[in-house]
Amino acid sequence: MLVPENTVIGFIGTGVMGKSMAGHLLKAGYPLVVYSRTKEKANELLEKGAVWAETPKEVAEKANVIFTIVGYPTDVEEIYLGENGLIPNGKEGSYYIDMTTSSPSLAGTIYEAAKTKGIQAIDAPVSGGDVGAREVTLSIMVGGEEEAFEAVKPLFELIGNNIVYQGKAGAGQHTKMSNQIAIASNMIGVCEAIIYAEKAGLNPEKVLKSISTGAAGSWSLSNLAPRMLTGNFEPGFYIKHFIKDMKIALAEAERMDLPVPGLSLAKSLYEQLAEMGEENSGTHALYKYWKF
Amino acid sequence: MLVPENTVIGFIGTGVMGKSMAGHLLKAGYPLVVYSRTKEKANELLEKGAVWAETPKEVAEKANVIFTIVGYPTDVEEIYLGENGLIPNGKEGSYYIDMTTSSPSLAGTIYEAAKTKGIQAIDAPVSGGDVGAREVTLSIMVGGEEEAFEAVKPLFELIGNNIVYQGKAGAGQHTKMSNQIAIASNMIGVCEAIIYAEKAGLNPEKVLKSISTGAAGSWSLSNLAPRMLTGNFEPGFYIKHFIKDMKIALAEAERMDLPVPGLSLAKSLYEQLAEMGEENSGTHALYKYWKF
Repeated sequence: MLVPENTVIGFIGTGVMGKSMAGHLLKAGYPLVVYSRTKEKANELLEKGAVWAETPKEVAEKANVIFTIVGYPTDVEEIYLGENGLIPNGKEGSYYIDMTTSSPSLAGTIYEAAKTKGIQAIDAPVSGGDVGAREVTLSIMVGGEEEAFEAVKPLFELIGNNIVYQGKAGAGQHTKMSNQIAIASNMIGVCEAIIYAEKAGLNPEKVLKSISTGAAGSWSLSNLAPRMLTGNFEPGFYIKHFIKDMKIALAEAERMDLPVPGLSLAKSLYEQLAEMGEENSGTHALYKYWKF
Repeated sequence: MLVPENTVIGFIGTGVMGKSMAGHLLKAGYPLVVYSRTKEKANELLEKGAVWAETPKEVAEKANVIFTIVGYPTDVEEIYLGENGLIPNGKEGSYYIDMTTSSPSLAGTIYEAAKTKGIQAIDAPVSGGDVGAREVTLSIMVGGEEEAFEAVKPLFELIGNNIVYQGKAGAGQHTKMSNQIAIASNMIGVCEAIIYAEKAGLNPEKVLKSISTGAAGSWSLSNLAPRMLTGNFEPGFYIKHFIKDMKIALAEAERMDLPVPGLSLAKSLYEQLAEMGEENSGTHALYKYWKF
């Protein structure tokens, strides 16, 4: 894709995911302005030609298509709505795209605030982890105005390969919540199945060979259960971030009067794990719940 | 494979699964003696040349390799250990293969009882459903003596395509329990994810497009969630049979002092559904739990 003359991309949050995603945009030839809480994390991009900004305000002043992918909804709120944030300092006609997994309600608030400044805000959380970000295989779930989505879609295509417009502002975040809800209960099932197999005196690797390909099969069973068995609990996805996501999903479900007993159970097990010091382990460390 | 001159196969239980499996054995050229509680269910096989037996005792007298796939552990117990059952009337050197999903402890009891008569009992439950039985894509999880497994393995290869020897008597059943445990919690996650998407005002088909291929992906999400959305609750697998399996798994877990909160939750939700009259629906009718 050719770079339109007037597009300057801003990127806020150059952690494991953001760094790869920003790198794809830079490689495609776009001028890139970056800001991250920890400047060192942006060094690789700066060496490749990205320009450093000292604040989100500076990003808003220099760029007109701005991606954000940070940690928590409170971070998103500050970056978008704070005094030195994007919206108070933004330019009319800009596009702001939040890829953080954050609250659907906050996505709505940001959309409305942006609108008053003539800015299109889009929520576009992703799934696929660090590998997906590196290999351009992310699933991108998009909420906001459809015209705005179509305008920035060529940029999404540089970042992911399963890009679906889900509806109005917040719909991307709601879709990601649905994703996390499906994962939450399944992680319990995967762990219980493996621990049961071990306790029954079976060879869990052989059990996986029997059960992975059929009706019990899942991405977690195929990808995370083998790591449990080799004791590798390095984070593909942090427990602390998963707890954040489950809290958002539970709050939304409560708002809808929707009982989610599986999600509630998963959250309580993960919170116990976090208390035991596992918040920086990968989500598959749920296995350890049965080992403490 | 050539039919050894002295092999006569017995088949007890010609329901949806059993009928297909027995058909494959018959088609391979083996003499087949069948018994089923409801004779009509064996008609198709009888028309193709199978011989009817009036009791399990008669099957035991006529056949030396006997497959069983029936409903509940109490049925298994009666067929194997009852007065007119297989073991009291069996011939030395026979092989008895129970493919019912049944209790690991009962598999051990049957193995021991068979042993005293010079008979090899094997537990070999399957997963893959009616489609897998028809298309020879079943996963067969085998417990018993390894030599006995090797002796009948060519017959398993006529029925399934993922055949794994899991260990001593009961190990096949334990593996199947592990399979059902993984399914149980995942079904909750799949339902909660879909219901959440609906309540949030999203298009659940689009949400499935976003979440099916990534870390939330599972066989149930890909195969059962679409049926939930079209209101098709025809049984691939009956709720009443799934409850039976979960009860066995829970009893075994209790025996091992193993907490299985996800399985316990799933069992309680399914029991509520059964009370609402859904015991003959497919397991994906768990979706209706949120609709009553």
